[in-house]
Amino acid sequence: MIECMKKRRTIRQYTEQDVPEELLCELLEVASRASNTGNMQLYSVVVTRDPERKAQLAPAHFNQPMVTSAPVVLTFCADANRFVKWAEQRKAKAGFDNLQMFMAATIDAMLFAEAFAEAAEEKGLGLCYLGTTAYNADQIIKILSLPKLVVPIITITLGYPAEPLPEQSERLPLAAIMHQETYTDYTPASIDQFYQEKEELAVNQEFVRINQKETLAQVFTDLRYTKANNEHFSEVLLQVLKDQGFLK
Amino acid sequence: MIECMKKRRTIRQYTEQDVPEELLCELLEVASRASNTGNMQLYSVVVTRDPERKAQLAPAHFNQPMVTSAPVVLTFCADANRFVKWAEQRKAKAGFDNLQMFMAATIDAMLFAEAFAEAAEEKGLGLCYLGTTAYNADQIIKILSLPKLVVPIITITLGYPAEPLPEQSERLPLAAIMHQETYTDYTPASIDQFYQEKEELAVNQEFVRINQKETLAQVFTDLRYTKANNEHFSEVLLQVLKDQGFLK
Repeated sequence: MIECMKKRRTIRQYTEQDVPEELLCELLEVASRASNTGNMQLYSVVVTRDPERKAQLAPAHFNQPMVTSAPVVLTFCADANRFVKWAEQRKAKAGFDNLQMFMAATIDAMLFAEAFAEAAEEKGLGLCYLGTTAYNADQIIKILSLPKLVVPIITITLGYPAEPLPEQSERLPLAAIMHQETYTDYTPASIDQFYQEKEELAVNQEFVRINQKETLAQVFTDLRYTKANNEHFSEVLLQVLKDQGFLK
Repeated sequence: MIECMKKRRTIRQYTEQDVPEELLCELLEVASRASNTGNMQLYSVVVTRDPERKAQLAPAHFNQPMVTSAPVVLTFCADANRFVKWAEQRKAKAGFDNLQMFMAATIDAMLFAEAFAEAAEEKGLGLCYLGTTAYNADQIIKILSLPKLVVPIITITLGYPAEPLPEQSERLPLAAIMHQETYTDYTPASIDQFYQEKEELAVNQEFVRINQKETLAQVFTDLRYTKANNEHFSEVLLQVLKDQGFLK
């Protein structure tokens, strides 16, 4: 498995081969063995195979082509609804309509999603995570009929990888993300050191050039994750948390 | 790997055997192959081996004994600090001080943590996730010297499993967590069906009896995750998000 993880790459192009329902169920069941908060399993997954529904979901993911081209789209949700309904039916009053339980449910959903991803890749499937889910959660809630206390957190598009496989993307050196005993804050020198390899990569230098920017960081801050967008989608998310009952 | 996942259980008791630093580094490096937001890797991990620091961390985790008994304690953090420092040094203005980027960083940190967990278990290590991290994030921030734009999300205690291994805990049937095409909300009948096995387990019935409750759900809502506690720790978390610069 570790060998499989070392070679992992995000797969955005899939063959025509469908993902058998039996395999999908096996992988989701295995993934449900992942740790979760107090064994309450505060998550759900919605499986989309219907081309019409994928077409509805696509704009919420800024029309990234994987949403309609992948045989399966999986929306992983933080879900306190099932637990609360169970509690109500068992003479128990759950106070789960708050930020802390949203966090717990988000953690549960993410551990479940990543356990699924690892299992799926082990079986030869390829996948792409879409972080756009939390940006346009309001749209996805409507399309998938998510009730109160359910918030979509991340989406996985899934299928068999089409050849040729993409290049593996780079990662920061381990020293950049690992701290011993306490957090060692970054200095100008350590930042230079940790980002040097990334900045020198031909593919990243090309990325700066075609976007007519001076630095790689500017591509991220001026084009991909702008302050204006981040703030706009923060407002949307805040409203979603209120509407779904996790924030007063 | 999938066979390993099927047998997974949370390990709270460890042998005296230490976790070699080289192995820990290998596993964290492998885990960093996990997907993350725009390859910005908005996470960090703080490694605690020093017994004194573990003793400092223990109260933040309500003195769960694993914090001091495990050879290694890993605190996984949502981290936008490193990225923002890089951007500042590269003539780029990052607008990452908002809720959406906190979500992105939380997702990144959780996918990284779970990839690590899967790799560690494959290598024969055992671990326990501590969700208490997000409850007492304020205390942990001080102990680990976490700067602004860094929030601890979850902790893993890690070591070699002591015999005898604990029983594997139950999970809801897959049908309870999986929705086809759209979310099928739960009915009294489906709740009864999905929770039946859990409620009938001897260990859970004993749990209800020793806590002198009428239902299993009441053990969760009246003792383990009370409304008062959830609301108190939501306030703490909200303040942490403000103090760390993710919320205005």
